Amino acid sequence: MREVFQQELREVQERLVEISRLVVIAITNATTAFNESNVALAEKVIAEDPKIDALASDLDELAISIMALQQPVARDLRIVVSALRMSASLERMGDIAEHIAQLARYRYPEKVAQDRLLGVFEEMGSLDVIVAEKLSRLIETEDLSLADEIRDVDDRIDELHVSVFETVLSETWAGTSVNTVDVTLASRYHERFADHAVSIAKKVKYLATGEWTGAGVR
Amino acid sequence: MREVFQQELREVQERLVEISRLVVIAITNATTAFNESNVALAEKVIAEDPKIDALASDLDELAISIMALQQPVARDLRIVVSALRMSASLERMGDIAEHIAQLARYRYPEKVAQDRLLGVFEEMGSLDVIVAEKLSRLIETEDLSLADEIRDVDDRIDELHVSVFETVLSETWAGTSVNTVDVTLASRYHERFADHAVSIAKKVKYLATGEWTGAGVR
Repeated sequence: MREVFQQELREVQERLVEISRLVVIAITNATTAFNESNVALAEKVIAEDPKIDALASDLDELAISIMALQQPVARDLRIVVSALRMSASLERMGDIAEHIAQLARYRYPEKVAQDRLLGVFEEMGSLDVIVAEKLSRLIETEDLSLADEIRDVDDRIDELHVSVFETVLSETWAGTSVNTVDVTLASRYHERFADHAVSIAKKVKYLATGEWTGAGVR
Repeated sequence: MREVFQQELREVQERLVEISRLVVIAITNATTAFNESNVALAEKVIAEDPKIDALASDLDELAISIMALQQPVARDLRIVVSALRMSASLERMGDIAEHIAQLARYRYPEKVAQDRLLGVFEEMGSLDVIVAEKLSRLIETEDLSLADEIRDVDDRIDELHVSVFETVLSETWAGTSVNTVDVTLASRYHERFADHAVSIAKKVKYLATGEWTGAGVR
């Protein structure tokens, strides 16, 4: 029984890794589409999001069936419950990548981020990709140093998020209202994407060490 | 054993009702603070959010201990898993109420929504309160007609959300960038708040009927 359970836990982990890899692809394509006004790539992200949703839903069913059949307790139970939560957060990261792609599609052939904000969003986008890649490796390898790295990258994304507002609210900002609305939402999406990664990283760390360092995504 | 389990499920339900009532208070105060620029009320919402977070966290621990000790299967297991998810969504609704209160505090003594948007945000705010109240009653009574009512109110909130963007993006919009950023975020928060309620309502309905009508919050 115990061996079956361990094998099922590996199956859960593999599926989380699989979903996290699709999230890496989604955010890579979404931020590229956003920064380069590539509408075909944006539509690809939008078309592929249901696949992430379906895999997350399948994983939830697997986790629930493991609970029912294996009746895990203590740490084993927490692992399965955490998998449910990680699946929900990964699914949400996929949704946010889709939102970024939708913004790119709405404004095509214009770029959403222009002039001095272009560089800021390029950096935020590449950091979101790095966060997603580190998260995928963290789930796969359980190398906890990656959790700290994710938190550090998230700190930098938060700084950039604040700097977008400072730019938009400065006296010299000459963007249209459309542009102001777009970059406000875009910045929020980029920031939330990384928040979810931090939340998942905390869960992985907690499961490995028993130390809980916070109450997840705010 | 079965009787103990039923009693524990009632405890879970009572705690969900308790949290949902705090969410009603939070969104009532947050939207009032937002529409009236009442900074004291905004600070009250911000100060009280950790209580919602703590109750949600306690409820999660209770649900996990029920799984470990009672080893529920089939529908009973789904009820407990759903309670974990509802708790996460209610906690998030509290966070969003806090975000709305923070916007009110930042702009005090100015109002965030001005002129023609004031009425729109008053309506959105009162609809968010109605959604939260209906949700609380739905969790308490399991009267499923409330789930349909929540969905209908959410549809109206979505319309208002779109109308905020139409206003801000119209040629006659004369708001400053600060104002454009604020109302963009505020409208998004009001809309997301109701989305979470719809997601919880679907779970309650699913548990009662076995019919799943969607994949939750998008």
